[in-house]
Amino acid sequence: MTLQERIFAGKGTIKADLALTGGKIVNVNTKEILQDDIAITGGIIVGIGDISDKIGDDTEIIDITGKFVSPGLIDGHVHYESSMLTLTHFAIAAIRHGTTGMIIDPHEIANVLGKRGIDLVLSEVQDLRSSIFVMIPSCVPATDLETSGAILDTPTVTSLLYNDGVVGLGEVMDFPGVLDADPGKLDMIEETLVLGKRGDGHCPGMTGSDLAGYLCAGISSDHESLTYDEAIEKARMGMAVMLREGSAAKSLKEFIPRLIEDGVALDSFFFVSDDRHPEDLIAGYMDAHVRTAIDLGIPPIDAISLCTINTAKHYRIDHLIGSVSIGRRADLVVLNDLEKFTIDRVFVSGSTNGSPKPVYPAEAFDTVRFRNIYPEDLCIKSDTPVEANIIVAVPDEIFTDWRIENLHPEGGILHPDIDRDILSIAVIERHGKRGSIGKGFVSGFGFKWGAFAQTIAHDSHNVIVTGTNVEDMALCANEIRRLHGGIVIAYDGTIIGSLPLPFAGLLSTGSIESVDAKQRALHAVLREMGCVLPSPFMTQSFLALPVIPKLKITDLGLVDVEKHEIIPVLRE
Amino acid sequence: MTLQERIFAGKGTIKADLALTGGKIVNVNTKEILQDDIAITGGIIVGIGDISDKIGDDTEIIDITGKFVSPGLIDGHVHYESSMLTLTHFAIAAIRHGTTGMIIDPHEIANVLGKRGIDLVLSEVQDLRSSIFVMIPSCVPATDLETSGAILDTPTVTSLLYNDGVVGLGEVMDFPGVLDADPGKLDMIEETLVLGKRGDGHCPGMTGSDLAGYLCAGISSDHESLTYDEAIEKARMGMAVMLREGSAAKSLKEFIPRLIEDGVALDSFFFVSDDRHPEDLIAGYMDAHVRTAIDLGIPPIDAISLCTINTAKHYRIDHLIGSVSIGRRADLVVLNDLEKFTIDRVFVSGSTNGSPKPVYPAEAFDTVRFRNIYPEDLCIKSDTPVEANIIVAVPDEIFTDWRIENLHPEGGILHPDIDRDILSIAVIERHGKRGSIGKGFVSGFGFKWGAFAQTIAHDSHNVIVTGTNVEDMALCANEIRRLHGGIVIAYDGTIIGSLPLPFAGLLSTGSIESVDAKQRALHAVLREMGCVLPSPFMTQSFLALPVIPKLKITDLGLVDVEKHEIIPVLRE
Repeated sequence: MTLQERIFAGKGTIKADLALTGGKIVNVNTKEILQDDIAITGGIIVGIGDISDKIGDDTEIIDITGKFVSPGLIDGHVHYESSMLTLTHFAIAAIRHGTTGMIIDPHEIANVLGKRGIDLVLSEVQDLRSSIFVMIPSCVPATDLETSGAILDTPTVTSLLYNDGVVGLGEVMDFPGVLDADPGKLDMIEETLVLGKRGDGHCPGMTGSDLAGYLCAGISSDHESLTYDEAIEKARMGMAVMLREGSAAKSLKEFIPRLIEDGVALDSFFFVSDDRHPEDLIAGYMDAHVRTAIDLGIPPIDAISLCTINTAKHYRIDHLIGSVSIGRRADLVVLNDLEKFTIDRVFVSGSTNGSPKPVYPAEAFDTVRFRNIYPEDLCIKSDTPVEANIIVAVPDEIFTDWRIENLHPEGGILHPDIDRDILSIAVIERHGKRGSIGKGFVSGFGFKWGAFAQTIAHDSHNVIVTGTNVEDMALCANEIRRLHGGIVIAYDGTIIGSLPLPFAGLLSTGSIESVDAKQRALHAVLREMGCVLPSPFMTQSFLALPVIPKLKITDLGLVDVEKHEIIPVLRE
Repeated sequence: MTLQERIFAGKGTIKADLALTGGKIVNVNTKEILQDDIAITGGIIVGIGDISDKIGDDTEIIDITGKFVSPGLIDGHVHYESSMLTLTHFAIAAIRHGTTGMIIDPHEIANVLGKRGIDLVLSEVQDLRSSIFVMIPSCVPATDLETSGAILDTPTVTSLLYNDGVVGLGEVMDFPGVLDADPGKLDMIEETLVLGKRGDGHCPGMTGSDLAGYLCAGISSDHESLTYDEAIEKARMGMAVMLREGSAAKSLKEFIPRLIEDGVALDSFFFVSDDRHPEDLIAGYMDAHVRTAIDLGIPPIDAISLCTINTAKHYRIDHLIGSVSIGRRADLVVLNDLEKFTIDRVFVSGSTNGSPKPVYPAEAFDTVRFRNIYPEDLCIKSDTPVEANIIVAVPDEIFTDWRIENLHPEGGILHPDIDRDILSIAVIERHGKRGSIGKGFVSGFGFKWGAFAQTIAHDSHNVIVTGTNVEDMALCANEIRRLHGGIVIAYDGTIIGSLPLPFAGLLSTGSIESVDAKQRALHAVLREMGCVLPSPFMTQSFLALPVIPKLKITDLGLVDVEKHEIIPVLRE
């Protein structure tokens, strides 16, 4: 609709497409629940209250007497790639849970596809009915200790910030860089502030003067608080605090009772997921946040505000979404019950229909490029017994432990030692760049046979493969290349499970049900193999992230995270 | 300070200029009152809480134990020209009342000086310590029924919107134009929205579908609600509602008890003055709003939020001002008593010193240009008795009544009839353009001798002069030209009072005390002359505003406002 058409729709000169009559609106502007009719034209709310002059012959009228109308819920910070779904399939799955808005930080796509990937995301956003806004990833790649698919340098980031659909700079994980006044990071932040947009933070455990320095840089939010005390300090200092309840980190049950106890105003807080795995997204989304908050004692209207108006105000898009108000998008959740937040139906831009199927360019499906891998490429050689640095995977954590073990070669090769749970691990550069392979040993998985590989491996998303033997590991790697990315399990020369993720090697193009079913099957196979980790794919994906302690592995080799350097597997 | 210096100040590497210790901070982020020390460097708050690592040898430490620290108060909408002070003197007077921030709409300056005037204002803002942000006037001139000093056309307005110090489009008074989808107005609004800035509204009495149309245009606020019911409708529909208590209109005592009674959340509301005359500005400013609100039953922290964080969030400048938070400007009000809001001292950008004296360009003082006026220029001629349209000034209102009277000529001229309180009135074009003079008769002033003139005459600010005889009227006009603008009273061939307003013919360059004293003297003289209006200068200034009913006068003649046309003084 043009602005003129909107105005005429508001005045009633143009008649409404849709009228919802008899419902009680959850008015987050005044924090009241008021019975009012709603008129919608061209996907916009154009009337609230007496809408009789907007009803025409073609106006569809839906009687929702006795029901409630909430603004569509917003996830204030999510890396949607964690769902392994394309943005379109993610948005469709989200709508079922009343979640019509997302502030996405496509950090993973950026690490693989760079600016082309962000452009692709921005174009997909345009085609979707859901209200999706983009933060530009600020830290691609995370370090120089790995080979990423792309680099988002400062000029590229600042140019992307100008896009209309962009509401700010993605979480500035490189907080040491900010505190040391790294010129590139400061340029990104300054440009963000000049544009009146938001710079998201990422500062787990940060308090006191470091926090003051980070805030002085112009960073406006954080979603990484480890404790309530840390979160409330951040809010008091003037930071927007994201209350995170994702597939990995969860904080609502700990933080909300304390917020209620302290009688703190909730204006500076909003709900985010940060990530959402397929099985969790099937079970619930921001609706689950609202229900949890209500269960913990927050009044429904405040719980709803925490993922509607608060989020929209923070990202300065409250003129577009976040409330059932005139001139805003008709993103509406009709509820049968307010206290239980039971969803009757969801309107996105005034429609209950899904979004059109996007057409992606071929290049998005051609991101896994490396030469054929042979078993010997993955071997570590030694002629004598030797001490080795071993990565120790920790269940459901993204940090690792670090162990030193004696290894004994056979035929000049250091083989995995299944009895001691010492498996081989390798990271294979897959962006068609260096062709490098980092090799090492890992403990903690516990499986007894076979190997598994995946192209989700933070942050550069090279191929990471763990196995009991290099033959199955090489097979996994080559199969993953054939699939253009995904997760693959092999045993005894045969592929026994796979989930293709051909979009950037990160996302399936299938539905959430299809992805979830395939992932469940893979989990079952890994358990069968003896794997003791509850979330082996997630855990393996973080073994390549060289910014979280202690010992990690990239395509360039083992990384001593605290020293920020590549170290040899074998000790002197 | 550079961003790097800010960060280092936050970390404590650079030591603080100033520390305020022992005070209790009014924390509008969490709505708590918490004892915390504050560190300030380069005018920015760089530490809250434990600031020991920021104290250096040169840090000034001020012990404010037992006192409270409020964020500096913000006037959310003011035409500062109503004070007859330059922006610098206005800011200085405001600081005394804890008011360190203003969203100004320099509508009057724009009508006289156009884009040059706005540029001047933006440059003065840069030099001031106070936190002043500019809305670009959207309706200059108000109509085509008068000769203004300048035209702010759509391309000019949209180009000005890009300025960093500009937070939006000034009140779009031409709401009929918006509702009729006037392309020029819509272009201005669309540009504002694309920039993520705010479009202020002006829609007295507007409700229902007109309001919906206005909101659908993207207008985000209003300060003109005539009744509480109108205000609450606007808030519920998603509009920010400014609670206005100015020198003219006042709404706090009516609206606040109703807001409390209805239990409405105050997030969508904020305080504004709209205008502030010198005598009122001496008595109080936004501190008076806070005290009134507290007296009416609003808790102090909420009353303070209504002119700090709420305003800053609305205008999307909460990263700069509006709270005692790290990284924000150190605009702070130290209070001896919170409930009574008694001010101990005020810091603006961390300093209690005033701002530097600005240097204005000569052109700002050369805006009153017209040829010498002779008494006969102001006469209305008739050879026969005739019915005339008479403007009737109404005490303390900006609308007028309209009366028809029989007038009898003497020597071919229709003279004022003092016994019937029918005085002569004229508007003389003063921008050096047409040289036109509009003439008519006015009732309601009641004075018995002399004449008075002024260059404040909304919206085009031509010379408006009322008198018992054309000789004194001509004298007033010529003296006003000699002074380059102001207010002048003449009697019997002599100037008996004047207040020079040489800056654009609107503002004195003197202090508030000087302007106030001179205005009081003028008021006394007018009362002596028999004037019965309580605010004769204000009332006269609105007689030239051809958008408020019923009968007005511009340099082009009498205006029938409802018909939007020039009409003759004498009836057929």
